[in-house]
Amino acid sequence: MELLKSHRSIRKYKTTNIPDDVLADILECGIRSSNTGNMQLYSIIVTRSTEKKALLAPLHFNQPMVMDAPVVLTICYDFNRFSKWCSANNTKADFSNLLWLLNGTIDSSILSQNICVAAESKGLGICYIGTTLYNAPEISKVLHLPAGVIPITTLTIGYPEQIPELTDRLPLDSVVHFEEYEDYSKERIAEIYQEKENLESSQQFVKENGKENLAQVYTEVRYKSADSEFFTAKLKQLLEDQAFS
Amino acid sequence: MELLKSHRSIRKYKTTNIPDDVLADILECGIRSSNTGNMQLYSIIVTRSTEKKALLAPLHFNQPMVMDAPVVLTICYDFNRFSKWCSANNTKADFSNLLWLLNGTIDSSILSQNICVAAESKGLGICYIGTTLYNAPEISKVLHLPAGVIPITTLTIGYPEQIPELTDRLPLDSVVHFEEYEDYSKERIAEIYQEKENLESSQQFVKENGKENLAQVYTEVRYKSADSEFFTAKLKQLLEDQAFS
Repeated sequence: MELLKSHRSIRKYKTTNIPDDVLADILECGIRSSNTGNMQLYSIIVTRSTEKKALLAPLHFNQPMVMDAPVVLTICYDFNRFSKWCSANNTKADFSNLLWLLNGTIDSSILSQNICVAAESKGLGICYIGTTLYNAPEISKVLHLPAGVIPITTLTIGYPEQIPELTDRLPLDSVVHFEEYEDYSKERIAEIYQEKENLESSQQFVKENGKENLAQVYTEVRYKSADSEFFTAKLKQLLEDQAFS
Repeated sequence: MELLKSHRSIRKYKTTNIPDDVLADILECGIRSSNTGNMQLYSIIVTRSTEKKALLAPLHFNQPMVMDAPVVLTICYDFNRFSKWCSANNTKADFSNLLWLLNGTIDSSILSQNICVAAESKGLGICYIGTTLYNAPEISKVLHLPAGVIPITTLTIGYPEQIPELTDRLPLDSVVHFEEYEDYSKERIAEIYQEKENLESSQQFVKENGKENLAQVYTEVRYKSADSEFFTAKLKQLLEDQAFS
């Protein structure tokens, strides 16, 4: 539990490579995780070559971890393999719909988190790259993903060059509800977010971006409506191209 | 890593309760996990009362774990709390779209898996209940979830009454691809699924259900097209009701 509680995203890596047997061991921990119906509707694409990393990096908005980490894993919802097995057995799987996209996203994420915990227990550091869904079609091309395979998330893994401070979290009791959801009053919201707002790093964000407060940094700088609309439209196009219902 | 490799879903629990401090410790490990922009767009609903469990159980198709486990956790994508913070700060968050539904699903799942690993490290057993998305609107009513909160997955947790056998997995090299996705030939598919098909339990499934092979049990009994269509339509209605784009 100490390992889980001391998790930090590692964004600077040593150049040391990850031995093949260590990587295999970590990935094996990943696939031991729970998954829907034990159908294993996922695939893991391992990127180690500088050439492929250089193609992926701009699709992840050039976050330096993609080039710097010895191993980049793209975790995908994959029903191509299972569908091929079904075809060979005179039947048809139907996983190209919203329900199964979400199921596949859950399973891929559970797998990813097991990989993270396993990696950290081996002294490695990881960082989730949350831009995978933004450029899923282009990433699919680079990795030669066929129809029925959708990249969900990306992990960079390597030996930590530096261990950053633990990041803040909201108080546990503000995200946990007992028996029923207790909606938040204005006063409660102010109380919950106070510590986060008062962090030196938060106040610097606000200043640097010329905003009135931290919430505005999130909504007007980091996660803008126009971006969500743009990338949602792109995702919908990808699903339409793959005949999702 | 041994913990991760020896994971089994636990479906039978002792009646022993989980002490409050143990539960809090486990949930704390959950929220230490990585999450998009550290916005913590999730909530955890803890169900311990028999009354609420009895309302949830049929929505999970009466899987006995829901009634039998001392603790049931419903993990939700939650942008209600964050949106309220934004309103209080004179700005507006826009997370009611497909991109953020998927981001929220990823973050909720990562959180869930950290809870599982923490629970198992404390000698508890867990089971994912994959039916949460099927009846998300009804579950929302039981748990009084407001708009902006969507149940993603459910965990049952308790002290194991019995430890089942480890379940099978496809060979690691059949779900991992190096540098590029290597699509599967007919021969490779047959090879990959051979062990699974030959399991005694698989052969029994086929027999019991009067099917020709295991793939047909999956597609024609367990995960039928008509069900996917029905529950996808229900999910889409829920998103429409919450003005998702």
